[in-house]
Amino acid sequence: MRGKFITFEGCEGSGKSTQIRLLSEKLTAAGVDFIVTREPGGSDVAEQIRKIILDGKNVSMCDECEALLYAAARIQHLKEIVEPALAAGKLVVCDRYVDSSLAYQGAARGLGEKYISDINSVALNSYPPDLTVFLNISPEKAFERKHGADKSDRMEQQGLEFHNKVYAGYLALVDKYPRICAVECGGTKYETAERIFSLLKDKGVI
Amino acid sequence: MRGKFITFEGCEGSGKSTQIRLLSEKLTAAGVDFIVTREPGGSDVAEQIRKIILDGKNVSMCDECEALLYAAARIQHLKEIVEPALAAGKLVVCDRYVDSSLAYQGAARGLGEKYISDINSVALNSYPPDLTVFLNISPEKAFERKHGADKSDRMEQQGLEFHNKVYAGYLALVDKYPRICAVECGGTKYETAERIFSLLKDKGVI
Repeated sequence: MRGKFITFEGCEGSGKSTQIRLLSEKLTAAGVDFIVTREPGGSDVAEQIRKIILDGKNVSMCDECEALLYAAARIQHLKEIVEPALAAGKLVVCDRYVDSSLAYQGAARGLGEKYISDINSVALNSYPPDLTVFLNISPEKAFERKHGADKSDRMEQQGLEFHNKVYAGYLALVDKYPRICAVECGGTKYETAERIFSLLKDKGVI
Repeated sequence: MRGKFITFEGCEGSGKSTQIRLLSEKLTAAGVDFIVTREPGGSDVAEQIRKIILDGKNVSMCDECEALLYAAARIQHLKEIVEPALAAGKLVVCDRYVDSSLAYQGAARGLGEKYISDINSVALNSYPPDLTVFLNISPEKAFERKHGADKSDRMEQQGLEFHNKVYAGYLALVDKYPRICAVECGGTKYETAERIFSLLKDKGVI
């Protein structure tokens, strides 16, 4: 039986890495066969693309170029990493996916949903996530918790205004697509992890 | 007055570089203000992308990833190199453009015209070439003339069957788009250069 595909979304510092780690522990304890992977990257070619995207020196990169590089890394990652794991019946947990492009490049950069959907058409048509976990925390609170951005990362160099647009973009996606479930991040990280694990069970993903 | 945008297309070994060099000499002699540039590349970010595309070690690259990387390098090159030159009233002569993607990834790789047009929509809508010179020589003849392919280049590693599909793709584009003019490559390189220069004059580009 083909595996399920779960993606995690959220603003910088929303705690995706922490929550994915905590989920991994729970999945291991529950005996689920799964892999954890991330976008952009996860394969040799995709990691080379990731380096160009995130290199803080590439300030001249235009918005469309950025969106196309994410789409290129994404399809490579899907075919090399995600597809074989799904075909082997594994649960795939992916850190960021098309919704990141819709929120960051589509909404915040202003390229629009149609352009992002067009350049990601193969991903969207052939690999729609079974469930997307959106960690719902505002950029202000996330930055506070993270004690500021990593200045060597081109995406984190963007100011708060940009990240607020990303957040608004995500909220619009949550409204539009039933597969995206917003998880509140109040309380401890363990409480959030418990909410996510319950959600996966409720939705029949595990 | 905004400058004109001319692109050169053709199979590997069709003599694009030679013809662009000979055209440059004629344009210089005629006092035309022009630049010569190439795809993919021509700007710092685009050259980084070019390296990934052409690296012979990247054998795992999937077709969509390749097409998206070309589209990414293209839009960056357009905004950084082509747009400023056109805005300054210069004639821009570009070695390869969207038609290469339509022939190589759309026709030969089988991704189709719609997918390539979608991912290159900004280039096609905002920067349609005023004239495209297609050097009409079959891959067999071109390879003969070039004494074989450069084995370190991932695109040239493809066999003759692939390059025949590229050629067929180009011929279909010539039929479909009046802006693409096929130039016969019989006779000496100087005779071909003369044909191209006359074409540019006839079409009012210079």
